[in-house]
Amino acid sequence: MRGYSFYERASRAFHQYPSLSKLLVVVTLSGGGVAAYNGAKPFSTAYAESVKGECEKKKKVVVLGTGWAGVSFLKNLKNPSYDVHVVSPHNYFAFTPLLPSVTCGTVEARSIVEPIRSITRKKGIDVQFRESVCYKIDADKKKVYCRSSQDTNLGGKEEFSLDYDYLIIGMGAKANTFNTPGVEENAHFLKGVEDALRIRQSVIDCFERASLPSLSEEEKKRILHFVVVGGGPTGVEFAAELHDFVTEDLAKLYPSVKDHAKITLLEAGDHILNMFDKRITSFAEDKFQRDGINVKTGSMVVKVAENEISTKERGTGQVAHLPYGMVVWSTGIGPRAEVVDFMKQIGQDIALIFSKADKNKSGNLNIKDFQEVVDDICERYPQVELYLKKKQMKNILELLEGSQKKSVEVNIETFKSALSEVDSQMKNLPATAQVAAQQGAYLANCFNRLEECEKYPEGPLRFRTEGRHRFRPFRYKHFGQFAPLGGEQAAAQLPGDWVSIGHSTQWLWYSVYASKLVSWRTRVLVVSDWGRRFIFGRDSSRI
Amino acid sequence: MRGYSFYERASRAFHQYPSLSKLLVVVTLSGGGVAAYNGAKPFSTAYAESVKGECEKKKKVVVLGTGWAGVSFLKNLKNPSYDVHVVSPHNYFAFTPLLPSVTCGTVEARSIVEPIRSITRKKGIDVQFRESVCYKIDADKKKVYCRSSQDTNLGGKEEFSLDYDYLIIGMGAKANTFNTPGVEENAHFLKGVEDALRIRQSVIDCFERASLPSLSEEEKKRILHFVVVGGGPTGVEFAAELHDFVTEDLAKLYPSVKDHAKITLLEAGDHILNMFDKRITSFAEDKFQRDGINVKTGSMVVKVAENEISTKERGTGQVAHLPYGMVVWSTGIGPRAEVVDFMKQIGQDIALIFSKADKNKSGNLNIKDFQEVVDDICERYPQVELYLKKKQMKNILELLEGSQKKSVEVNIETFKSALSEVDSQMKNLPATAQVAAQQGAYLANCFNRLEECEKYPEGPLRFRTEGRHRFRPFRYKHFGQFAPLGGEQAAAQLPGDWVSIGHSTQWLWYSVYASKLVSWRTRVLVVSDWGRRFIFGRDSSRI
Repeated sequence: MRGYSFYERASRAFHQYPSLSKLLVVVTLSGGGVAAYNGAKPFSTAYAESVKGECEKKKKVVVLGTGWAGVSFLKNLKNPSYDVHVVSPHNYFAFTPLLPSVTCGTVEARSIVEPIRSITRKKGIDVQFRESVCYKIDADKKKVYCRSSQDTNLGGKEEFSLDYDYLIIGMGAKANTFNTPGVEENAHFLKGVEDALRIRQSVIDCFERASLPSLSEEEKKRILHFVVVGGGPTGVEFAAELHDFVTEDLAKLYPSVKDHAKITLLEAGDHILNMFDKRITSFAEDKFQRDGINVKTGSMVVKVAENEISTKERGTGQVAHLPYGMVVWSTGIGPRAEVVDFMKQIGQDIALIFSKADKNKSGNLNIKDFQEVVDDICERYPQVELYLKKKQMKNILELLEGSQKKSVEVNIETFKSALSEVDSQMKNLPATAQVAAQQGAYLANCFNRLEECEKYPEGPLRFRTEGRHRFRPFRYKHFGQFAPLGGEQAAAQLPGDWVSIGHSTQWLWYSVYASKLVSWRTRVLVVSDWGRRFIFGRDSSRI
Repeated sequence: MRGYSFYERASRAFHQYPSLSKLLVVVTLSGGGVAAYNGAKPFSTAYAESVKGECEKKKKVVVLGTGWAGVSFLKNLKNPSYDVHVVSPHNYFAFTPLLPSVTCGTVEARSIVEPIRSITRKKGIDVQFRESVCYKIDADKKKVYCRSSQDTNLGGKEEFSLDYDYLIIGMGAKANTFNTPGVEENAHFLKGVEDALRIRQSVIDCFERASLPSLSEEEKKRILHFVVVGGGPTGVEFAAELHDFVTEDLAKLYPSVKDHAKITLLEAGDHILNMFDKRITSFAEDKFQRDGINVKTGSMVVKVAENEISTKERGTGQVAHLPYGMVVWSTGIGPRAEVVDFMKQIGQDIALIFSKADKNKSGNLNIKDFQEVVDDICERYPQVELYLKKKQMKNILELLEGSQKKSVEVNIETFKSALSEVDSQMKNLPATAQVAAQQGAYLANCFNRLEECEKYPEGPLRFRTEGRHRFRPFRYKHFGQFAPLGGEQAAAQLPGDWVSIGHSTQWLWYSVYASKLVSWRTRVLVVSDWGRRFIFGRDSSRI
């Protein structure tokens, strides 16, 4: 009989403070993903209590957000033994991959949305929806604080709080501006339906503004200069859509100003679509060049003024000023303030875990202890292992090198920074709808089979205690990614590095997206929108 | 050889100061109609100059507004010898009779609009469109002053002026609030596409707000109390649409609050739809009663506060206060400020006409002289005669009775007030799309055949000078009117007092409206919207 080893202590720390595990799930939030959280109690303990004490009272699950993760959770949840409360500022789910199409009217906004209430209505589950924003999560009291998302005064009753037994965070992310000055004020983002509608209006506005009499050629050119910042899939798709809109539709209606219209795509890296295969990248760059879309790579935006965008060449450091009429910012996403705040709350727990692991209270862990802690994480969260593999790190030690060179001990700050390194790097799990949807479905499945898995756990063997983990860990399955390039052409990168480019790929894109839509209604509407566009073109009414 | 008779003087006055005629046409503006104006010169003189002097320089026609009248003018104008400039804050034409359907998503907003540029593009006519508001008309300098309708700063270049040879005013009307306090601030109107979209959002907002936790039953009831002010065709159609939306769609999605929803229709008169046949009125009242729509007739709104609407019973004078969640104001329309200002400008001319007619400069016309002036008006403007007939006045004298009892002479103020009486009463020409569209087409036809009619005038014989008037006067041809009543039922009143009510009339309504839509695109979209609604219901996503 030996005393508690460090292994056991560390393992216990994780069981008693599963918040660290939350930290590692929360990271995927930046990709619109999901985090499940059930307060300071491990999942199993909470469940045990529910079975033990309040058999009749349903456990309350609060879902924050109705994006891909939240809706995928709701759609897949089949276990009626929960009382589900959904809080989101939008009373609908939006099929975000079609947002770039909405910006130019190829597809109507209403065709890609479905009310949450109609998604949940037909399920035999108690689901309450509140059109509200969650502005604060209190992990200690297991409470979320919410406020009606309408600008309304109900004498304080527009604010309310909800207790939860389980909290599911799928609030999505916000656009990452890298604190570039002027972006918030002057640029459009492309995160939600409202953004897409605003961009659509703004494009028409530019053409109408340029058609006013008494403007100089110079001014017309400026007004019709559309700048897209970020050469990722969204930026590229938007630039392509805009090009088609201008050449196929607007040029006919605005013949006097059409020659002034210009699209510039700014990318800080060496190539656009750099997460895709090189064949796709070079096809896209060639196509854009033929189309007259001005692609400027190695160009970092340093400031967005009201009518001018300033860029810095990565090579030469030269600063250029581009007058513009409209700018769309699409350089990636970052976590929301509420989630950052929540992460801080659970971040406190890191100190506790550390102190648990820090046997002699020296304020330092030795490297071996630290590695053992992280090994435990890897076991539970296969993504971390994948990440280490991807980075070709043999072990966790190399992760520390960025923070602390070859030190023999790890102090609490290094511990935190190494974990936040994993956190930030874990964003490499693609920040896509696919990931979020799979996470939501995984989580719903866990809730669906909770009783069953409690009795017959199906996860991997536990090393440090007996038995198995209840659930198999989440594994992301990549089904490939599309990059529509305009002119009825698209590129697709499928698993196994299969690459497909051209008109046939665009048809593949049509069929995949039509099949993935959330309801038959949206499916019919989107397909009829596509048909309408083929026949009548895109509408340029400014509504 | 006799000297100039009064007849001749009066007639000359009208030729030299055709502004009075404008006054009589402008009146129909309140119905969304049209006024043609060519400065201080009579049509013929202006035309003569154009032929004589600047053969190559095209005459400039400025069209203000792209409502029914303006667009009907543009669609029917075929004469390429004009340089047409269109100024409107909206770059599209909206098929307004379907606006009530847009408020509840039966039809999508984009399905009922068509860009002005695509309407004019295929015509072989020079048409320039400016998305701007006209804020001032200078009749003396023949100039309109405009400003970009976007909230944009172009260093002053967002403002511009346009000279015109002919000015066509089709700016439409604004909702008439009768200066009831709080209406502008708290009520929705239903004049344009934006209004309809706002109402749609607002209905959903009310249901979402009522679904917040921690509200009392009382508050839920208030929030879901929808008040429609005005029992005319628009108010009735909106109430019916809203009732269908609530019972057919929202009740399913908001089961916990659906029983709180209530619709009240307030009408100051004795009956709703009082311009229709009594059979229609009583059918509508009965149907609304069965549907649970609360119709309160004889109820005048005296104040609209933020959450409460105050009404006064016409009979008893009793004041009641109704808490409400949303109020739609639909009591009719009045002229816009710019048009009122313009009418004041041309109103000055009345003094000139008066002084021309006032032979002995006494400041008074005798009744006989006055009647002769008005006879001339009646000849040119058959509506005035219709009006007199309708009012069962034998002659113009009775018109004066309101202003001046049995006096023998008419002073300038009485002259003005009698004409403004005609003006205000002429609003009895139905304030409908039908009237405006016919006026626009009539005017386009005048422009199309200007050369021809100059040579071969086809109008009625001139009494006081030789020859004929160039154009036959405008005559409104009434094709009947619909009143959709919800639940797939409608009422129609056709010429000759034919009345049709029921489901078959709704189908007649569908086919008439589909055929009247402005383009094949809108036709296809509206019909597919109807189909979509039958299959999938109305969407309640709050976008």
